[in-house]
Amino acid sequence: MTDHDGGSPEISADSFDAARATRELLAVLAYAELTASFRLAEDASGAPTLADKAALGAMAVAEFGHFEKLSGRLNELGADLDAETGPFVKALDEWHAQTPPKDWLESLVKAYVGDGIAADFYREVAGGLDEPTRDLVMEVLADTGHADFAVEHVRAAIEAEPTVAGRLALWARRLVGEALAQAQRVAADHPALAMLVVGGQASGSGQQSGQSEGDLAEITRLFARLTDRHAERMKRLGLST
Amino acid sequence: MTDHDGGSPEISADSFDAARATRELLAVLAYAELTASFRLAEDASGAPTLADKAALGAMAVAEFGHFEKLSGRLNELGADLDAETGPFVKALDEWHAQTPPKDWLESLVKAYVGDGIAADFYREVAGGLDEPTRDLVMEVLADTGHADFAVEHVRAAIEAEPTVAGRLALWARRLVGEALAQAQRVAADHPALAMLVVGGQASGSGQQSGQSEGDLAEITRLFARLTDRHAERMKRLGLST
Repeated sequence: MTDHDGGSPEISADSFDAARATRELLAVLAYAELTASFRLAEDASGAPTLADKAALGAMAVAEFGHFEKLSGRLNELGADLDAETGPFVKALDEWHAQTPPKDWLESLVKAYVGDGIAADFYREVAGGLDEPTRDLVMEVLADTGHADFAVEHVRAAIEAEPTVAGRLALWARRLVGEALAQAQRVAADHPALAMLVVGGQASGSGQQSGQSEGDLAEITRLFARLTDRHAERMKRLGLST
Repeated sequence: MTDHDGGSPEISADSFDAARATRELLAVLAYAELTASFRLAEDASGAPTLADKAALGAMAVAEFGHFEKLSGRLNELGADLDAETGPFVKALDEWHAQTPPKDWLESLVKAYVGDGIAADFYREVAGGLDEPTRDLVMEVLADTGHADFAVEHVRAAIEAEPTVAGRLALWARRLVGEALAQAQRVAADHPALAMLVVGGQASGSGQQSGQSEGDLAEITRLFARLTDRHAERMKRLGLST
């Protein structure tokens, strides 16, 4: 967010490129769903039982379906999938490269906590989109059943061996730190997308919030909401935040 | 194949357990399709362009669908998926552990050549199954588009850099060797399934071939057919056998 003169609205309806922000959100989500699908397939491949392999495999398939819907929508908008996703590939690949799960439990926590916080964030941002796009985003962000699966397996593992809880709690903290670092980099490189973060909240009436002070308060509230929901997920897993 | 007294039919309608052989074939195929789906997702993840990632990802999804159909059929037959696939997990996991592709081209050749020879073999065996099962097997073995994808990309790579052809031809030879070694082990551990191999050829009338000499001739002809089709695939790739 650039620093314009104090009182006047920083983002006018003209300067805020809604079409561009929409394309960018669809693109980052499309690549995120595609890589999530591949990671789930990898987790499925390493799962201890055939039932777990089949369950995670089905979730990987569902995520791939989300990727196809998002790329289909980008196509409808006349956007080039490769060109649009290109700028987000590095950030998402780096997120995965920086956070390789050491075992099956870490991969479950990563998918639940990492994808969870990302999904919450995208949902918040989607408030600023046109209705069909918003509906599509909400649809592809709907849980594919992974949450219950992760909670069930992680809780069972902690019950069997209580000492793993400390290691997994530390792991989750590292995941959140890395996710925020990548999100910050993406926001800095994509001002239109970043505008959605502040604009999205107040956009029920189509109005774009402009003042820097309002932006800051908005972002603070957004982070408080994301943190709350993250804490709920940790609690469900039986982990301390 | 056990050694009974010379002239009398070795496999009677009673001693050949068709239901068991059917369950075993469905089980080995189900696990093969599941692992093929995971390997394709891995290849997709490492593919050089987004279009390639999307294309291979869609094939991984199709293979997972095949797994679901096969496990659904096992369910209908009242079989327990875990118990049925259990005996084949080691052989298929070992096949993949013994043949890790070093790069994207090797993974394409592995999927095309390895899955190709396996599919031909399963198709031959399926001749001895009841009609609904045979139809299902033929359906899940239908090419998901990977063949053309592999041929196109491997040929383009050889055109760009002719020296890779020698390396890939050697790789394909190793794949066939490992596949045959695993197939032999599976056949030795599963006599009912092995019976399908010899019985399947002559089973249009429900008759089971029994003489050892007839078996041997049958197996020789089967291998000749498999080798011919393998050579056709290598030719399509632009590789020498």
